Amino acid sequence: MTFVDYFLRYITISLLFVVLHVNAQDTEPYKYPQSEIVTIHSKVLNEDRKIYVHCPKPDTANPTKRYPVLYLTDADNYFELLAFYTGYLSRWDVLAMPEMIVVATAHADRIKDLTPTHGTTNYLGKPDTAGYYKTSGGNENFLQFIRTELMPVIERNYKTEPYKILGGHSIGGITTINCMLTHPEMFDAYIAISPSFYWDNRYILKLTDKILKKSSVLNKKLFYSNGNEGEEEVKPSFFHTDVLTFDSLITSKKLIALNYTYKYYPTETHMTEPIVAYFDALRFIFKDWEKH
Amino acid sequence: MTFVDYFLRYITISLLFVVLHVNAQDTEPYKYPQSEIVTIHSKVLNEDRKIYVHCPKPDTANPTKRYPVLYLTDADNYFELLAFYTGYLSRWDVLAMPEMIVVATAHADRIKDLTPTHGTTNYLGKPDTAGYYKTSGGNENFLQFIRTELMPVIERNYKTEPYKILGGHSIGGITTINCMLTHPEMFDAYIAISPSFYWDNRYILKLTDKILKKSSVLNKKLFYSNGNEGEEEVKPSFFHTDVLTFDSLITSKKLIALNYTYKYYPTETHMTEPIVAYFDALRFIFKDWEKH
Repeated sequence: MTFVDYFLRYITISLLFVVLHVNAQDTEPYKYPQSEIVTIHSKVLNEDRKIYVHCPKPDTANPTKRYPVLYLTDADNYFELLAFYTGYLSRWDVLAMPEMIVVATAHADRIKDLTPTHGTTNYLGKPDTAGYYKTSGGNENFLQFIRTELMPVIERNYKTEPYKILGGHSIGGITTINCMLTHPEMFDAYIAISPSFYWDNRYILKLTDKILKKSSVLNKKLFYSNGNEGEEEVKPSFFHTDVLTFDSLITSKKLIALNYTYKYYPTETHMTEPIVAYFDALRFIFKDWEKH
Repeated sequence: MTFVDYFLRYITISLLFVVLHVNAQDTEPYKYPQSEIVTIHSKVLNEDRKIYVHCPKPDTANPTKRYPVLYLTDADNYFELLAFYTGYLSRWDVLAMPEMIVVATAHADRIKDLTPTHGTTNYLGKPDTAGYYKTSGGNENFLQFIRTELMPVIERNYKTEPYKILGGHSIGGITTINCMLTHPEMFDAYIAISPSFYWDNRYILKLTDKILKKSSVLNKKLFYSNGNEGEEEVKPSFFHTDVLTFDSLITSKKLIALNYTYKYYPTETHMTEPIVAYFDALRFIFKDWEKH
């Protein structure tokens, strides 16, 4: 290697360093709003559970301010979305809802957590030969975990006020309805996006009819919806017909103080619908919210 | 202080340490997907500009994969939302659009960046005595910055493919229409959410009529919308009537190859509308996108 080769190599390496250095100076990480993952050891479930928590920015003018809480299933799908929605929609220049704490549960086994009974047939009514549902039926335990372990941790460690919402999609949707029927003291409002009413021969539809007495008081807000889903295998969509059945049931019960709405999204799929349905659900729940 | 006092203090401090220690172990920061802020010195604008960039996760099975780019105004309002939407909607279990790079411009002076002319009257047609609009009229410079400085940086440093979308809200909405009219080579699709057509005596509406020749070719996708806004001061809403005028204009021009849609959100405000309109715009632009 000649001196010129060495010299060229030196120049090249030096230039490379300068270019990398300039790039490094010009780029910095984008800072998302802080959120945290809390690991709770659950005695009820006999396992560690990961909970994602997002809080509003501290209000320096009002350090004792407290916030309603939105509980969600399926943290890995919708936690970031709801952290954004609640933050944006409560901004001073938007003021469509109050600031809110978002608490989302992650699921190692969502079939176990989010189904109310042990199911043995799939959504087409055929035997679950693949064993997808073999762990199903743990929803009562999961709700006990939320009531007796998660809620106390959240209320002890964060600035909560009593108002609480539960939101879920698909089997998370039947979880919210199951919770409203069997533990109505836990939440004030419910979001059930494309609830999987097909579960175990329409178990939740039957339970709804059994538990809700005609003209009884149910002082809650309730949003439910479905998209254009399941169409490829069964027409009409069983999601759509089941939610229509639920809607008729709810209407026929003439419940006192229940504030409910049903939204149908014919252009959305099972997985695109939650984006717009969660937004519409928050807009519905806080429609009459007084701006400060 | 007695021995008992000391002992109690010792126990209290020890317990406090244990509690803090347990809390520290149980909580970790939530990791949002990585995004970055790039600072570009613009010769066109004679200032440093902050650009927020979000990229899809690298595809290890396809390391040479390239992505369309969504450019946005008003980074501080909608960057996080569109980073989430594009990520979620392109997931393997959603597949409603391709993965995409999001590039959003922050504005120290958005009136300067996002208005096409120097305006002297406000949206009610009254003189801008407060001087809100004194820096207005810099949109051509801003578009030159995007074309000659920002796009080359993005294309050099990220895995871009040629397809590009421009999205904006309010005066960001007239920016996208102005760009489509005056630099149609820059983008393939446009999102104009509640464009502020009132600007400077309907300058952009007049420009639309002047520039778009009847039955000419405009091979683009175009989404525009408005909410229920401005109602408190003027009825009917000038946003609504102006967007209706624009919609009639576009329809009357019978443009060849233009794929356009108009959405009206009567229950949304000027600030809540972008949440659902950006979602609907992406759904519209990628309606016929072939799933892989």
